[in-house]
Amino acid sequence: MFSVFRGGQSGAWQVKRLAAVKGEGLTPTPALSVTHSDSVALPILPSQTGWRLVGVASHVRYVERAEKEQLAAAQAGLGRPEATLAALIPIRKSAAWWELTQEERRGIFEDKSHHIASTLRFLPAIARQLYHCRDLGGAFDFLTWFEYRLAHESLFEELVGMLRETEEWSYVEREVDIRVERERLDAV
Amino acid sequence: MFSVFRGGQSGAWQVKRLAAVKGEGLTPTPALSVTHSDSVALPILPSQTGWRLVGVASHVRYVERAEKEQLAAAQAGLGRPEATLAALIPIRKSAAWWELTQEERRGIFEDKSHHIASTLRFLPAIARQLYHCRDLGGAFDFLTWFEYRLAHESLFEELVGMLRETEEWSYVEREVDIRVERERLDAV
Repeated sequence: MFSVFRGGQSGAWQVKRLAAVKGEGLTPTPALSVTHSDSVALPILPSQTGWRLVGVASHVRYVERAEKEQLAAAQAGLGRPEATLAALIPIRKSAAWWELTQEERRGIFEDKSHHIASTLRFLPAIARQLYHCRDLGGAFDFLTWFEYRLAHESLFEELVGMLRETEEWSYVEREVDIRVERERLDAV
Repeated sequence: MFSVFRGGQSGAWQVKRLAAVKGEGLTPTPALSVTHSDSVALPILPSQTGWRLVGVASHVRYVERAEKEQLAAAQAGLGRPEATLAALIPIRKSAAWWELTQEERRGIFEDKSHHIASTLRFLPAIARQLYHCRDLGGAFDFLTWFEYRLAHESLFEELVGMLRETEEWSYVEREVDIRVERERLDAV
């Protein structure tokens, strides 16, 4: 199952802000739609009026068993009606990151960057889903998607700020930060 | 870059044998072609007269640094003129495998199955390349490709036989074994 994020003229999510955090940005658009499909043509061709990004919610790559259980117990699912804000943060990591072995990546991911341990406290307030796209040949390696309620907006800023200070983040060479708000509850 | 393996009426490789090792097989065809492309439409639609499989030569997932260096030093590249025999072995692993964490998979992969250590001695006689396709939504998780010379045919049987006796292999739920021979050296 492919998840398709389309920035364009219409969609269930209204784009509030689109910022290039590192490297090249994306064309600003008024809306974002999120759809799921069993089929897709790759690569997604560039569009003058918007963009499309495709990812796959794949198996977990770094967490260990105890962490997997902690995360499963703590995390909220997507689609909570009260979570009217969301963020789509596409990321590409450098060739140096992908040249590392799995154990080296895991070392940076958790032992040095404490990615799992330190994000655990943001759950279940902030629901999240990681979509892989490196093997799909697009411009990004991951699409990260977060959903949260208005009252947790500053908590989300704290989470994103913390992640950008980790050693892991030094391997990010392109990042776009897209903040969206649900158009209407009944449109979801 | 997507690698496309097409079983059909023509191609640089002549199919000598196509066997369903576990689970459903594939339609037998006289030839196999291997091409590389920047674009692909997924899923690959079924064909009455043959089949197509698509994978991506991605980054390594399990090897550690010392092993990565040992492998790099030992292994031969694809396309050696004397390697006129090849095998395409598409594999799908069970849901139970993908429910494991990375460390658990690595534990089975190397600590219990000695996948890397025991295959090292088959290199450089047998060149190999792993193509990932789990995230591409097809019927298989991996396409493994091996190239070797006629004199190493029994060595290759030994390698395949050894891999099928490991604990890792108990997680395989579909495997097809396709043996091919280069049509003509100048056709490659």
